[in-house]
Amino acid sequence: MAKVLSGAGLRGQSAGETALCTVGKAASGLTYRGYDIDVLADKASFEEVAYLLLYGKLPNRTQLHDYEQRLMSLRSLPEELKAVLELIPESAHPMDVMRTGCSFLGNLEPELAFEKKPSLALHTADRLVATLPAMVVYWYRFTHDGVRVNTHNANVPSLAGHFLTMLHDKEPSALHTQVMNASLILYAEHEFNASTFTARVCASTLSDMHSCITGGIGSLRGPLHGGANEAAMDMIEPWKTPDEAEAALMQKLANKEKVMGFGHAIYSERDPRNDIIKKWAKRLSEDVGDDHLYAVSERCEAVMWREKKLFCNADFFHASAYRFMGIPTKLFTPIFVCSRVTGWAAHIMEQRANNRIIRPSADYIGPDHSEWMDIDDRH
Amino acid sequence: MAKVLSGAGLRGQSAGETALCTVGKAASGLTYRGYDIDVLADKASFEEVAYLLLYGKLPNRTQLHDYEQRLMSLRSLPEELKAVLELIPESAHPMDVMRTGCSFLGNLEPELAFEKKPSLALHTADRLVATLPAMVVYWYRFTHDGVRVNTHNANVPSLAGHFLTMLHDKEPSALHTQVMNASLILYAEHEFNASTFTARVCASTLSDMHSCITGGIGSLRGPLHGGANEAAMDMIEPWKTPDEAEAALMQKLANKEKVMGFGHAIYSERDPRNDIIKKWAKRLSEDVGDDHLYAVSERCEAVMWREKKLFCNADFFHASAYRFMGIPTKLFTPIFVCSRVTGWAAHIMEQRANNRIIRPSADYIGPDHSEWMDIDDRH
Repeated sequence: MAKVLSGAGLRGQSAGETALCTVGKAASGLTYRGYDIDVLADKASFEEVAYLLLYGKLPNRTQLHDYEQRLMSLRSLPEELKAVLELIPESAHPMDVMRTGCSFLGNLEPELAFEKKPSLALHTADRLVATLPAMVVYWYRFTHDGVRVNTHNANVPSLAGHFLTMLHDKEPSALHTQVMNASLILYAEHEFNASTFTARVCASTLSDMHSCITGGIGSLRGPLHGGANEAAMDMIEPWKTPDEAEAALMQKLANKEKVMGFGHAIYSERDPRNDIIKKWAKRLSEDVGDDHLYAVSERCEAVMWREKKLFCNADFFHASAYRFMGIPTKLFTPIFVCSRVTGWAAHIMEQRANNRIIRPSADYIGPDHSEWMDIDDRH
Repeated sequence: MAKVLSGAGLRGQSAGETALCTVGKAASGLTYRGYDIDVLADKASFEEVAYLLLYGKLPNRTQLHDYEQRLMSLRSLPEELKAVLELIPESAHPMDVMRTGCSFLGNLEPELAFEKKPSLALHTADRLVATLPAMVVYWYRFTHDGVRVNTHNANVPSLAGHFLTMLHDKEPSALHTQVMNASLILYAEHEFNASTFTARVCASTLSDMHSCITGGIGSLRGPLHGGANEAAMDMIEPWKTPDEAEAALMQKLANKEKVMGFGHAIYSERDPRNDIIKKWAKRLSEDVGDDHLYAVSERCEAVMWREKKLFCNADFFHASAYRFMGIPTKLFTPIFVCSRVTGWAAHIMEQRANNRIIRPSADYIGPDHSEWMDIDDRH
C-alpha cells in the first residue's frame, strides 16, 4: 500500500543514498564528502571543491593545477551558442537563459554512450562548470550593454575571477575574488534539495547530463528554491537606516508577509553558511565604505530572531555581499547555478552508479468512474 | 528517522495526490479523470482529451470547436525560435531539440505571475501543445531535407493531421489521422511516471511552466523511460520473417539481453494500451500491403509471453504502426512529447494548487568526518 503523504513533499522520506553531503547533522552542520563547510570555505578554492565533489577527493597540487588548466581550456562558448544567446531578449529571466544555454549546448556536444564511459559524464560536467558563467554573463552584457564579452580570460585562473572579470570588464580585487570563491563553495552542494532531486529523477531514466542539469536549473529558478537572495535584496534595498528597516520589517511581520532569507526546511538551529558569508559581507561593507546596507542587514537579523526565532540562512547576507561587489540582483540566482552545477553533476553520476528509475505512486482523489457522454449531450 | 529505501526509486511510495489518472487499478486499467482509456481512444479526439486533462471535463460542441480554433491560432513558431532550430545540427537528438525549443520559447513568452493568474498557466500549456509538434518537425525537415515547413496548416484542424502534414508535405489519409489521433490519446497521461514526477518536483518550487515541461522532456529522453518504441523498432526492423524474428529473439533471451517494449513497472497482467495500438497496427499493415513487419511483431509478442510471461506494453506495436505511416524512428519519442505535454501541464497545475516543495531526504553513506590536509601533504 502506498503510504499517504499527500502534499507533504516527501519530507523526511529517504529517496536514495548519497556519499556527497550531510545537511543538518546535529541540527546545524554541513559537510561535503565529510569535510566541514567552514574548513572548505576558509581554506579551499572553488576549483578544489569542484574536484572534491566530482572526482571524489581533494586534489594534490599537480591535480589541482591540471584541473584549473583544464577548466580554463573549456571556457569558450561555441559561436552557435553565442548566436542563440543573442536571440534572447533583454527582458528575459536570466535563469531561463541559463536553462536554454545548457540545453542548447547539449545539441552541439551531446554526452554520448555515457553508460559505458563515465569519463564522458565528467567531461560534460567540467564543460558545464567552465561555460555556465559565460552563458549568463555573455547574454547579460550583450543585451544590457551591447558588448560581446571575452569568454576566455586566459589570465584569470579562477572561475570566481572569471565571472567578475566578464561582468565588470576588469579583473576583480583580491578581496572580491576571495569572497566570490567562498560564495561558490557555500552554494556548491546541499544533498537532496529540490533542484538536485530533479536532476536525480532525470538521471534515473538514464537521460544525458545536459537534460539533468537543464532540469536542475529549471527547479532552482522557482521562488521557493533559488530566488531567496534576490528576494532578500529587493526587500532590504529601499531601507536606508537600521531603524527604518526595523519599522518596515515589523510591519511586514504584522501583515504576515513572507520574509525571504530566514529559516530553513532542514536546519533547525542555524544555517552554517550564514556565519561565513556574513563575515565577508562585513569585510566588503568596510571595503566599499558602505554606510547603511550592512547595518540594515544586521538589524533585520536581530529583529527576525527576536520576533520569530528565525535565523538567517545562506541567502540573506549573500544579498548585501553581492551588492557590495556590484553584481546586479538578477544575476544572484545564476551565480547559484554556476556553483551548484558541481553538486548536481556529482549527484547525477552517483544516481547512475546505483540506479533504479525514480517512479513513485500517487494517492488518487478523482472520480472512480466517469461515463462517456456523446458530445451533444454535454453541458 | 528517514525510512531506508535506498535505490528503490520510491516504488510504491506516495509522493502526492492526483485526480488525473489511475494506472493499474485491478492490475490492468488506465483512466483519465475516471474515463476508461478504451473509450477515449475509440470515441474522442486528442483535442477533446487535452481539454479533459487541462480544463477538467469533456468539452461540449462549442467548447471543443473554440478549443480547436484556439490551438490552431497558437501554432506558429516565432522567427527567433526558428532561427535557434536552424542552428541545431542534423546529428542532434530530436529530444534535445524539443527540450531546447521549449526552453527557448520560455525566454520569448515567459509565464509571468502564474501564482496569481492560473489562466496564464493554461495559456502556456495550450501554446506548448500547439507548438511542440512544429518545433521538432521544423528542425527535422530543415536539417534533413533543407525545407522550411509551414508550421500553421490552417486547413488541417487536428494536431494529429498537422504533425503528419508537416512531416510529409501533404495531408494524411483519414486512416493515418485516426491512428495518430489514437496514439496521441494513449500517450497523453500516466500518473507519476518519471517525467511527470520531474515536472511536479520542478513545479513544487513554484517555477514556471516552461521550466517544468523542459524538465519533463529531459526525463522522457532517457532510454529507461520514453525511448522504448524506438528501441523496439531498431530491434524488429532487420527481421524479415516471423521465424527469423523468433530465432533472433530466442538468442537475445539466451544472452540475457534487455528486450524493449515488454512488461511494465506498474501493470502486472497487461498494458491496456496495447490492444488498441495493436489493432491499429494491423489495420495499417493491411492498408500499406505490409508482408512481414506486423507478422514479425505478433510473433515477438507470442514468444515473449511463452518464454517470459511478459506482455507487450504501449510501445511495442507503436513501433510498427509509426513505421507504416512513414514516420522516421528518431521522431517516435518526440511524438510522445507532443502528447504527454497535456498530462505534464495538468500535473503542474495540480501540484501548484496544493503545493509543498518536494524535498526528500537521503541515507548518508559517505565518511563521517574527513580531516583537511594541506595540499602539499595530499597523495
